[in-house]
Amino acid sequence: MILINENYAKLPSSYLFSEIAKRVKTYQDANPDKRVIRLGIGDVTQPLPPACIAAMHKAVDEMGSAATFRGYGPEQGYDFLREAIAANDYRARGADIDASEIFVSDGAKCDTANIQEIFGQKIKIAMPDPVYPVYVETNVMAGRTGRCRGGRYSGLVYLPCTAENNYVPDLPTEPVDLIYLCFPNNPTGSTATRKQLARWVEYARANKALILFDAAYEAFIRDPTIPHSIYEIEGARDVAIEFRSFSKTAGFTGTRCAFAVVPKSCVGYTRKGEAVSLHTLWNRRHTTKFNGVSYPIQRAAEAVYTLEGSQQIQATNDFYLGNARIIRETIAEHGYHLTGGVNGPYIWVRTNKDSLNFFDRVLQKAQVVITPGPGFGLCGKGYIRISAFNSRENVEEAMARLRKVL
Amino acid sequence: MILINENYAKLPSSYLFSEIAKRVKTYQDANPDKRVIRLGIGDVTQPLPPACIAAMHKAVDEMGSAATFRGYGPEQGYDFLREAIAANDYRARGADIDASEIFVSDGAKCDTANIQEIFGQKIKIAMPDPVYPVYVETNVMAGRTGRCRGGRYSGLVYLPCTAENNYVPDLPTEPVDLIYLCFPNNPTGSTATRKQLARWVEYARANKALILFDAAYEAFIRDPTIPHSIYEIEGARDVAIEFRSFSKTAGFTGTRCAFAVVPKSCVGYTRKGEAVSLHTLWNRRHTTKFNGVSYPIQRAAEAVYTLEGSQQIQATNDFYLGNARIIRETIAEHGYHLTGGVNGPYIWVRTNKDSLNFFDRVLQKAQVVITPGPGFGLCGKGYIRISAFNSRENVEEAMARLRKVL
Repeated sequence: MILINENYAKLPSSYLFSEIAKRVKTYQDANPDKRVIRLGIGDVTQPLPPACIAAMHKAVDEMGSAATFRGYGPEQGYDFLREAIAANDYRARGADIDASEIFVSDGAKCDTANIQEIFGQKIKIAMPDPVYPVYVETNVMAGRTGRCRGGRYSGLVYLPCTAENNYVPDLPTEPVDLIYLCFPNNPTGSTATRKQLARWVEYARANKALILFDAAYEAFIRDPTIPHSIYEIEGARDVAIEFRSFSKTAGFTGTRCAFAVVPKSCVGYTRKGEAVSLHTLWNRRHTTKFNGVSYPIQRAAEAVYTLEGSQQIQATNDFYLGNARIIRETIAEHGYHLTGGVNGPYIWVRTNKDSLNFFDRVLQKAQVVITPGPGFGLCGKGYIRISAFNSRENVEEAMARLRKVL
Repeated sequence: MILINENYAKLPSSYLFSEIAKRVKTYQDANPDKRVIRLGIGDVTQPLPPACIAAMHKAVDEMGSAATFRGYGPEQGYDFLREAIAANDYRARGADIDASEIFVSDGAKCDTANIQEIFGQKIKIAMPDPVYPVYVETNVMAGRTGRCRGGRYSGLVYLPCTAENNYVPDLPTEPVDLIYLCFPNNPTGSTATRKQLARWVEYARANKALILFDAAYEAFIRDPTIPHSIYEIEGARDVAIEFRSFSKTAGFTGTRCAFAVVPKSCVGYTRKGEAVSLHTLWNRRHTTKFNGVSYPIQRAAEAVYTLEGSQQIQATNDFYLGNARIIRETIAEHGYHLTGGVNGPYIWVRTNKDSLNFFDRVLQKAQVVITPGPGFGLCGKGYIRISAFNSRENVEEAMARLRKVL
């Protein structure tokens, strides 16, 4: 008898995000004349940069000619892209990362979901709250938690991120082995200072713990004092794996390219306490279960690092940050406490009432879709997330409508 | 302390395939004037079909304009591609598969590697021998086996595929829950008849077992009596998941697109014996850990099903089968027993001596790279695999050289 993985039964059968999609659809079906503006899902709206388009066309042509055709590439990514990443995203910021430590992939969702496979079953995991649900759910599927009760899984150590700690988690009060961090944060839009990150690196070094650092939104940082990478912190390369994506950086949500950085000095331990290279383990996982990113897509990603490419993505991201400013100012005007939207594309707003009621009111009265905070964890209760990924026209129209109902 | 997944230590530290790569490199470095011809790795050499190139260019242009730009697509793939697959690959062959049962992915390697996640830990797995190593290694990583001794992992039920059974495994003599099958086969190039597949489907139905059917090479079938899909067999849609790829079908090894078919009638069981939809489980896995295939790549895959696209891939695959015929004839001429190369791109040759010695001799004397059979399992001992994926010129030159040393 073919038995199933029963851990899947621990996952919520009705995802909050599906419920939201259903409510939006119901409203839209009942009100076909109303134009709904979606500031909910964090999906980009601006086209790919011209530099990426040109690079892709060129690579597509190469694939059409026998002389320049490419079959299987290296599973870890082509050297041209790994070198560009190491040079521009790391060495240019003083972070000591080599091209051989970069693993190109088709998404940071996949990477942050898959990385847990190389760790033991019995590890203590620290999980920020609110958090990107993928971190939690992939550990549930792998059997590292008990059941979910009252919005929290037994077996995880939750790290509340609230107004009190400025949405940057405090060190845990019990020992943990694996720590998920994401800055600039999804969903709160908050950032961590160099000092705050240094405290986590110090904790990991002292406790033989490992930090999984999700930096998918680093391209939105404008404050020069905020680190873009965990590797800007001394000692981090021994205790941290970093995830990056071209999705938000360069509008690749539908194009698919990302990467993980696993430094060669990063180690995990056997039960006997022997140190094992995580680079070796991840390389084994990556080459056994993945066959590399499409060649034309890797060429498009490489173009992000050219002079034109980097100027084009900077302009697009400045544009989204302009949206964020408009949203921030509108919401703040009405006296709401909020964070984010300065060095990140999300604005996290305390609604002072039930998030789902607030969502419904904004949908019904202003035809604007936002994301209720509880979709990201218990600490999201009473909060909503607004995304700056949209056209200027839509953001301005949405804010004009919100002014009337807030 | 961050513990590692110690199952990785059970994997062979030195992969036979790395050893081979090393020997080729050593030879080439020592003999820079010799031109080595690689008939080892199963990678395509012909460019992408013009229909796919045109579709990709069009889609790339769409990504460059705000009006036609696409962000996140459905994780399961766009309807345009799922519908084309269901109609052409299945319904046109009388197989009752709906578009909603197709999960588009970036590779059959990924799919066949990831599918085991939705099953329980304590299942009995039947593994053909020889076999594509990914099936075995991903179950080792997941902890479903003991250690490897003498080339076989304890805990797996091996199904020998030899000249005696015409390289199609017999039913197991002990009960099994999960069965990996691949036809046309990698590495042997053998195919299974309708009757042989029906016996496996009957076994699975009778034993509440599940078949994982890898049909990555179906495009090479020319014999009209051989099924292209397991779903051409009555009753299979309740007990089989099928994997397909555009890699070999349409030259996508460097472009990356594939799909899995998980019929809605396919079930697994809880330990209490309750039936659970595998479609629901895989959908949860796929949407949580994957973010869809790049839009331009899905458009390229869709073009495979146009009239021009299908004619172009047929011509390319006929070309590879022409290579296979030349290889078959040359080897058979010298009295070797062989299989494959008629409805599949691989030729599996019994060398009557040690595979690695044979490999070395062919490399040193003829500067031709082939794959030693033991890379695929214990039953590969004394065999080698020759791949038909190459230019006609290279195949002819390689065979001329082999004639002198066989």
